[in-house]
Amino acid sequence: MRIVELEAFEVAVPFRGPIVSAFGISYPARIRTFVRLTTENGITGIGEAGPSATHPYVRGSMPARFERDVRPAVLGESPIDHAWLARKLYHGPDAVAIELACWDIVGKALDVPLYRLWGGRGHVARVPLSAYAFFRLPNASGEGEVDLAGMAEHCVALRAASGFRTVKVKLGAHPPCDEIEVVRAVREALGPGTALRIDPNGSWSVATAVRALHRLRDLDLEYVEEPIRSAGTGDNAVDTAGLRRVRSAGSVPIAADHCYRLDLLAQIVRDDAADVVLVDVFGCGGPARALHYARTAATFGLGTAMHSGTELGVGQLAKIHLQAALGEEMRHASDAMYFEYVDDVLAGGPLRVVDGDMAVPQAPGLGAELDDAALARWELTDARKRDLDAYWGDLKGEIGTSYPSLDHLVRHY
Amino acid sequence: MRIVELEAFEVAVPFRGPIVSAFGISYPARIRTFVRLTTENGITGIGEAGPSATHPYVRGSMPARFERDVRPAVLGESPIDHAWLARKLYHGPDAVAIELACWDIVGKALDVPLYRLWGGRGHVARVPLSAYAFFRLPNASGEGEVDLAGMAEHCVALRAASGFRTVKVKLGAHPPCDEIEVVRAVREALGPGTALRIDPNGSWSVATAVRALHRLRDLDLEYVEEPIRSAGTGDNAVDTAGLRRVRSAGSVPIAADHCYRLDLLAQIVRDDAADVVLVDVFGCGGPARALHYARTAATFGLGTAMHSGTELGVGQLAKIHLQAALGEEMRHASDAMYFEYVDDVLAGGPLRVVDGDMAVPQAPGLGAELDDAALARWELTDARKRDLDAYWGDLKGEIGTSYPSLDHLVRHY
Repeated sequence: MRIVELEAFEVAVPFRGPIVSAFGISYPARIRTFVRLTTENGITGIGEAGPSATHPYVRGSMPARFERDVRPAVLGESPIDHAWLARKLYHGPDAVAIELACWDIVGKALDVPLYRLWGGRGHVARVPLSAYAFFRLPNASGEGEVDLAGMAEHCVALRAASGFRTVKVKLGAHPPCDEIEVVRAVREALGPGTALRIDPNGSWSVATAVRALHRLRDLDLEYVEEPIRSAGTGDNAVDTAGLRRVRSAGSVPIAADHCYRLDLLAQIVRDDAADVVLVDVFGCGGPARALHYARTAATFGLGTAMHSGTELGVGQLAKIHLQAALGEEMRHASDAMYFEYVDDVLAGGPLRVVDGDMAVPQAPGLGAELDDAALARWELTDARKRDLDAYWGDLKGEIGTSYPSLDHLVRHY
Repeated sequence: MRIVELEAFEVAVPFRGPIVSAFGISYPARIRTFVRLTTENGITGIGEAGPSATHPYVRGSMPARFERDVRPAVLGESPIDHAWLARKLYHGPDAVAIELACWDIVGKALDVPLYRLWGGRGHVARVPLSAYAFFRLPNASGEGEVDLAGMAEHCVALRAASGFRTVKVKLGAHPPCDEIEVVRAVREALGPGTALRIDPNGSWSVATAVRALHRLRDLDLEYVEEPIRSAGTGDNAVDTAGLRRVRSAGSVPIAADHCYRLDLLAQIVRDDAADVVLVDVFGCGGPARALHYARTAATFGLGTAMHSGTELGVGQLAKIHLQAALGEEMRHASDAMYFEYVDDVLAGGPLRVVDGDMAVPQAPGLGAELDDAALARWELTDARKRDLDAYWGDLKGEIGTSYPSLDHLVRHY
């Protein structure tokens, strides 16, 4: 069963409104590259790759990489050998896309959904997701804004629309004193029956985190994610001393994020620095490594939750299968930025949440195909890239005038 | 692809000579139960199960368990759902046999050897094994004895016969002062070019271990395995404080064994109690759990080696595939009691070691089938069981008269 064809599709799917976080103002669309592998016996598998959301991107560079570097490494190989292929590809973002597509093929060859291939214990019908509430700027149509005053209402609306039993609020966009009041307002609006987690996006100092969590101590927070961040990107180091200080100062559980490397996980375990770690299918380097990361964390008594950063539908499906395979080893509902996008590229349209859960596909492999019409609709053409860049430039120019509260955000991604 | 048939075969394959360890004198043959599953599309998979080597065994009890408890749990299920089946079977030794057979089927269905399915990175032709030298009593023909005076020569002979680059000596059968001199003689006989590991089988106290390793400090030992053992069986608890004391007192690396549960591994990591942990495909609860155990250990910088306890050919094949899949995540050569048996039940005869390595099967699945003639030859008939029991009874009766140095061994298994 050898791979005989590789196709790559570069798309940009718009956000409902540009997101504001500690990283700055998001690019107004999510750029992703989807791949489709075909085997000699006609089985296809699909995958998804970056680029990174926080670095400048030149249109066409990911597809060119797939054509130039990945194609010769992959063609003629068996999809079973995804671990070997990932090594050949230096475990880059392209390797994750290839691994996903390989697993999809293997699942189809065996006629089983991936969560069962990944060690799921029996039939799993659905897995719980968390609502993910972001501060947003208005989009090009002037809609979708979520500001300090509107966040509580936004959270209630998200819950009402899809029945989420967990709500996550992304902070780090406004001064901590303002955001603390917002969290209080969100809890008041949601009432006590909904799990509430917050994510300052690494924007707090240790001292700020201790003070903030003291003020939030009676809100029964599920956890605070990445209250502080190491110098640098956070993916390369973790300040376990700081996390431990924050953790020991109060009663709010601490979730570490952007620690997807196993050595960082080991450091968290050794230093008792967190209660929960976030697992990212791309950040961990593919689904097999994400499974290992999550199971290792569970072995040491850490809770886990699926992180959401950059993925569209294929990545979201991989997360669902991972969550279903992990079962009770993964204690927390999954994050999903997915609902911030206006569309997806899966056949059958975007995935849905019902009563706070997403259905686990029972079809073989990932359980979905790419929709050629959607790929064409959202193709990152030269014209679209120029429009998006221009709109983003305008947005960034307005910071400090139209959005003075965001003036402290010196970085824009 | 549903399982439609389950067969179980109970065999007893004789030792070359009864082994002496800290557990006492081994039963003169290894009793194992092999299973063969067949799917509706005619694919077969083979597995292997206990009984335990250290508990009295009633002939036929394992096959009866497969017939009564396992058959209804397994028939009609898919071999993909091994994790679910293992849970249904309470993760007992029968569950490991079923999981092995399921993986064998899945590998055959995908036409790949298991090590590639388990995340091996590319083609692996062979994996290194360690010679395993035991003190032995003479067998019924009066041959095969290995006593204190003969151990060094025995080690050299094992190396010469198969090209082993690593030699392991099982201790715990004689007083520590005598065995320390034996280890010195073994190192002298082997010379410096061969890795040498020792295994006191948990028989030393902390104080004895510290003294013994001080005396052995210049022999460049690869590691000392299980120098001490917790009260009880050792599978239920690990004395990490004691191991840490032994480890910090000298320079000989410490390998922890009989700690196959993940919570015991976590305790070893947290307490910095070992340099290496042994991984047992049966003790860990099947190959998937053994993989997770080994990869988790590697994540925390622990070396790993495949333990050998009770397995015949199917278990040995599973170990080979695991070792090949783990690659450099598993730093040490595998133990194999396998060569202590006079035969095996695999078609094509016993597995071989050439230049210290065992070839990794490249055929789909485990890469071997059961040999019906061998199953018949070694079937544990009522007559054979009576003969083995009688011979073992005689052996135990002679302890203290013919083998006075073994008189301290109050337990016999």
